[in-house]
Amino acid sequence: MKPDKILLDHGSGGKISHSLTADLLLPAFDNPALAMLDDGAVLDVPAGRIAFSTDTYVVDPIFFPGGSIGDLAVNGTVNDVSMCGAVPLFLSVGMIIEEGFPMADLERVVAEMGQAASLAGVQVVTGDTKVVPKGAADRIFINTAGIGMLREEVDVSGANARPGDAVILSGTMADHGMTILTQRQGLSFDSDVRSDSAPLNHMVADIFGTGCDVHVLRDPTRGGVGTTLNEIAGQSQVGVRIHEARLPVRPAVAGICELLGFDPLYVANEGKLLAFVPADQADGVLAVIRQSPYGKDACIIGEAVDAHPGRVYMQTRIGGERIVDMLTGEQLPRIC
Amino acid sequence: MKPDKILLDHGSGGKISHSLTADLLLPAFDNPALAMLDDGAVLDVPAGRIAFSTDTYVVDPIFFPGGSIGDLAVNGTVNDVSMCGAVPLFLSVGMIIEEGFPMADLERVVAEMGQAASLAGVQVVTGDTKVVPKGAADRIFINTAGIGMLREEVDVSGANARPGDAVILSGTMADHGMTILTQRQGLSFDSDVRSDSAPLNHMVADIFGTGCDVHVLRDPTRGGVGTTLNEIAGQSQVGVRIHEARLPVRPAVAGICELLGFDPLYVANEGKLLAFVPADQADGVLAVIRQSPYGKDACIIGEAVDAHPGRVYMQTRIGGERIVDMLTGEQLPRIC
Repeated sequence: MKPDKILLDHGSGGKISHSLTADLLLPAFDNPALAMLDDGAVLDVPAGRIAFSTDTYVVDPIFFPGGSIGDLAVNGTVNDVSMCGAVPLFLSVGMIIEEGFPMADLERVVAEMGQAASLAGVQVVTGDTKVVPKGAADRIFINTAGIGMLREEVDVSGANARPGDAVILSGTMADHGMTILTQRQGLSFDSDVRSDSAPLNHMVADIFGTGCDVHVLRDPTRGGVGTTLNEIAGQSQVGVRIHEARLPVRPAVAGICELLGFDPLYVANEGKLLAFVPADQADGVLAVIRQSPYGKDACIIGEAVDAHPGRVYMQTRIGGERIVDMLTGEQLPRIC
Repeated sequence: MKPDKILLDHGSGGKISHSLTADLLLPAFDNPALAMLDDGAVLDVPAGRIAFSTDTYVVDPIFFPGGSIGDLAVNGTVNDVSMCGAVPLFLSVGMIIEEGFPMADLERVVAEMGQAASLAGVQVVTGDTKVVPKGAADRIFINTAGIGMLREEVDVSGANARPGDAVILSGTMADHGMTILTQRQGLSFDSDVRSDSAPLNHMVADIFGTGCDVHVLRDPTRGGVGTTLNEIAGQSQVGVRIHEARLPVRPAVAGICELLGFDPLYVANEGKLLAFVPADQADGVLAVIRQSPYGKDACIIGEAVDAHPGRVYMQTRIGGERIVDMLTGEQLPRIC
């Protein structure tokens, strides 16, 4: 009889480990490289440049409106690889599971990873599962690493912003972070606040499809748009000016932020990107982003400038200017 | 002043996260791809096949005779990539750290990762650090994923064993597992029991350097030699016959195994490999393995045969025969 909870045996490397792999993981991630069951996957790649990225997901709760730790772990790494200007192809999955974790929850997490991988068009080709005794970890943590092929001629980096670039944000801010917060606190707002967890690789393909000379792509996750813009300003040594009136936030999310004292500029997103592109190409890029299912609220929120190199500053609604610093302190542990 | 313990802030994605990266991680893993600080690393690869593997390390204790979670996390993935027949080149590192973890311990872990990467000749090119509240994880867990380039013409897989192959084990069994067990139980044996944690990529290069047609390479970690041979027998549908009298175990380790009721065949190794090679090439391969600093106790422990396809069996010292099954049950949680 199949156990209804994860046992230490499931991480032993022995018989029960093998049955977990064969019965649950192989079907969910079905592909020939994984099915070889060797110590690693062997993959054909053309000559060129690859992008390689990793992220670990410790989000609490593991299921939330709009997503779960499963699709987050796939989307997050798909997006990090995409932000390098690459086409994500292959993922690894490393899971740490607490003894006693319900098998039904694991099945749901794994199924959602498989669906997210299908949606993004990537393959989970190698993996590892560890089980730790009860109390040594909180339910489940998932690491993914991802490999993608760089598009030829593409050179995007946080260091490539240039004065004159338009700064495009692909949609509303703070949806993911505020969803996690309200779930965790057991706050029940009568609203449709949902995580924006989404794969951005198809949107990125459409952006490059315009022929635009994209300078920077970055997804504003932990630390939010404010912190990510500071990273870019610092790496590129440009100033970044943003306009408060243009910053897109859903009214329900804005309301919760205001009630709880959070600035949406610093709250995590999981399905948004920032793009720095030459100003004269920005409208074309914006048009294709808005055609994406995840980009209908995209807008130009600001521009890179010569002034204040390395700093981000905001033109406020009332016509003033203020510095937007990097996040200091931790707002929300285990947000992703 | 630098905090002497890890704070939740270190995982925020904000200012303190960035200083941890800049002050600790970048110097330890110094290389240009990592220093770009983009969402992923961009790497040049020639056309061909890559190997991609991942493992998560949850070993307890984190420091032990012969190694630490740091060098284990590097060596383990270097070895998994090597076992595909590839030359390991790049690693990702994803850390989950418990709030309150001593900064000095983190510095030691990271330093040992850096040294292990240098010894193996691989670069840590991308990473991620999460901090979880006290009690949500036990000290530190580390995931690594690795990328290597396959050697041309090489085709090694657990599915490639052929009757007639010699089975080479590169050294003594059970050193790692018994080290962890005795440390954890606070058992003090007056002996030099030490983990065998080691990078095997240079040994693998020497094996291919002989021109041998290697059929299978596998490192017998969790589940030990007994479980790994079962995997290979199953994947290749050959029988594997091993000889009890030839199985190398250090006397001190054998004594502890006997005292505590462990079979060294099922105890984890972290610096050993199994190679299946055509019998007439086995002596040449054995000779180069024995020249490696990690291979002086290498020997031919058995052979692949037509009989008992999918099973492993042992000729005992007294002339009998018994089936060696895959590990059932968990011997030692958090062994790696």
